[in-house]
Amino acid sequence: MVKSRANIKDVASRAGVHPSTVSRVLNPATRSMVSESLAKEIIRIADEMGYRRNPLASGLRTRRTYAVGVIIPDLTNPVFPPIVRGVEHTLDSEGYIAILADSGSKRRSEEALVENMKDRHVEGLILAAATRKDPLVEQCIEQGIPLVLVNRTVDKHNVAAVINDDELGIDLAVTHLVELGHRKLAYVGGPQRTSTGYARYRAFLKTVKKAGIVIDRDLVINAREFTESAGQAAFHEIAQTGKPFTAVVTANDLLALGCFDAMKELGMRCPEDVSVTGFNDMPYVDRFVPPLTTLHIPHDELGAQAALLLLERIQNPETPAKQIRLEPRMIVRGSTAVPSSQAGDESISGRVAETGA
Amino acid sequence: MVKSRANIKDVASRAGVHPSTVSRVLNPATRSMVSESLAKEIIRIADEMGYRRNPLASGLRTRRTYAVGVIIPDLTNPVFPPIVRGVEHTLDSEGYIAILADSGSKRRSEEALVENMKDRHVEGLILAAATRKDPLVEQCIEQGIPLVLVNRTVDKHNVAAVINDDELGIDLAVTHLVELGHRKLAYVGGPQRTSTGYARYRAFLKTVKKAGIVIDRDLVINAREFTESAGQAAFHEIAQTGKPFTAVVTANDLLALGCFDAMKELGMRCPEDVSVTGFNDMPYVDRFVPPLTTLHIPHDELGAQAALLLLERIQNPETPAKQIRLEPRMIVRGSTAVPSSQAGDESISGRVAETGA
Repeated sequence: MVKSRANIKDVASRAGVHPSTVSRVLNPATRSMVSESLAKEIIRIADEMGYRRNPLASGLRTRRTYAVGVIIPDLTNPVFPPIVRGVEHTLDSEGYIAILADSGSKRRSEEALVENMKDRHVEGLILAAATRKDPLVEQCIEQGIPLVLVNRTVDKHNVAAVINDDELGIDLAVTHLVELGHRKLAYVGGPQRTSTGYARYRAFLKTVKKAGIVIDRDLVINAREFTESAGQAAFHEIAQTGKPFTAVVTANDLLALGCFDAMKELGMRCPEDVSVTGFNDMPYVDRFVPPLTTLHIPHDELGAQAALLLLERIQNPETPAKQIRLEPRMIVRGSTAVPSSQAGDESISGRVAETGA
Repeated sequence: MVKSRANIKDVASRAGVHPSTVSRVLNPATRSMVSESLAKEIIRIADEMGYRRNPLASGLRTRRTYAVGVIIPDLTNPVFPPIVRGVEHTLDSEGYIAILADSGSKRRSEEALVENMKDRHVEGLILAAATRKDPLVEQCIEQGIPLVLVNRTVDKHNVAAVINDDELGIDLAVTHLVELGHRKLAYVGGPQRTSTGYARYRAFLKTVKKAGIVIDRDLVINAREFTESAGQAAFHEIAQTGKPFTAVVTANDLLALGCFDAMKELGMRCPEDVSVTGFNDMPYVDRFVPPLTTLHIPHDELGAQAALLLLERIQNPETPAKQIRLEPRMIVRGSTAVPSSQAGDESISGRVAETGA
């Protein structure tokens, strides 16, 4: 392993090209300036001779670092590790590194972390924790830092982002419950300052209306955080109204787990008394009591797509900002069933009776 | 935010010192060369004037990058995110960044990732996936790269590492089961190429011997991987011997989950037919069916200690390699109980009857 390596001139000489051509080919950002067949040949020769670009040395000459900053709100929230892994694997395969920062526990502001990343001359940023009106995102755009949001986005449409189709997800959950025969629905949503919390809430109102269901607004609570304890508190608040409901749509799995906790405290059974749906399909929810019916999100793919989109923007900062939406998929498990008490509800259709419980 | 910043000379002038003194103070690695009170004063002035060191520029002059490479085997294994978070928070508070690489899915060899980190001039490495005889660890040591292992270590004692006290953990699990009245124990271990798999296996044999229990070696299986499917296969293998056992000690939570799966397939109940213990206390195991009795490991702290140890070694590469062991703590939940069938077992002591089920 500690052999003396070929240098760029050796590779250029063997390939019969100028060293600057080798340099262009071995830099993912400039590779497209050289014909594909020549690029392949040069990469083959470089591999064979054991020559690798030194990204830091290249960075000194070209002011490039081949480094990307990745800022996430909490690595121990099960949603984020697969996103980060997807980002890192994709960056790595293009010769970039991921500098990871976890802004959790309000230890340091995201602003400070971004400043730190800028000091490190990262070529772009991936942010997983944007709020809908995020001054930090505005700043990055003003300062011309290539930026991609992942998982959550901002209200303005001038920012590149890779997100879930939240509206489709909630539509699938509501449709599933309606098909089971539920008519009295409650909703435990997330913080309205996040795009996910807001979009899922709007989608819930829209979808139930489409289904011809009148929602009692007392049964609709948007929690302050996407956490188990916030979901637990929201469920208690709904239960305290004393109004009847047979199912709860939640805006993420942690909120759904909080509903499980509250139901246990209230002596209610899931799904016998109340059905519950989640959103995310985080690891191990299939092992909970009951196994959670939820929306599966391809988190690895969210991360991979975000990395690709960022590399595209680094290469060509003038491309218009794209938003990529990935489709969630309904996973039916044990937390949803035909409502046991259907007094006052419409009769259940034949199709539902087949699907149910 | 975009104000013109004070430079190092401004800070030096205000503090009445030479710029090199400011530089020393603002570099965590050289801060101790300056008296503590002067260092504090200079940091205060620099903060006040909005001066921050540019780590990349400093790196150019001093060949330092204030970057550390963190290589983990699989970020989606719930053990690693809190370790990485602990590492990152600690590095960040000392002015270092974490370059993260996930070697998962055998996509790229760990060797290639380490080479990549070296090209980036990282000042040290944290490896979370060492094997007991790891050529990569040997190479790093030979090449003088500051290195700290976390979670797993190597057999040789010349490497800095932060690990769990595996022997204590297994001792706690076995003692818990013996106190409940279990005498016929099985063991599902991990890969013997890892220090955790090996140490927990040795600890099991030692502890049961100490407790005066004779183990049937057919009931002891070391799985090839720390995964649910490997645990499931191991449990089936044990069950197929037809020999009686009332409890299984496992070497990690994923193996324990695999045992749950196998028991379900075999129509066996946990803990009524067989008690199961895990190791790690990964998130949400308290929500499984049954909630898993396991050993809690302070993963955040493992990461934080590893980062501190590495910074110590970067500052002073000549310090002898230290191994730090953190103590696990027994968390008793629903997967362990007094054995229901005790034919052939010793009678249960009064203490156990009180503790049990």
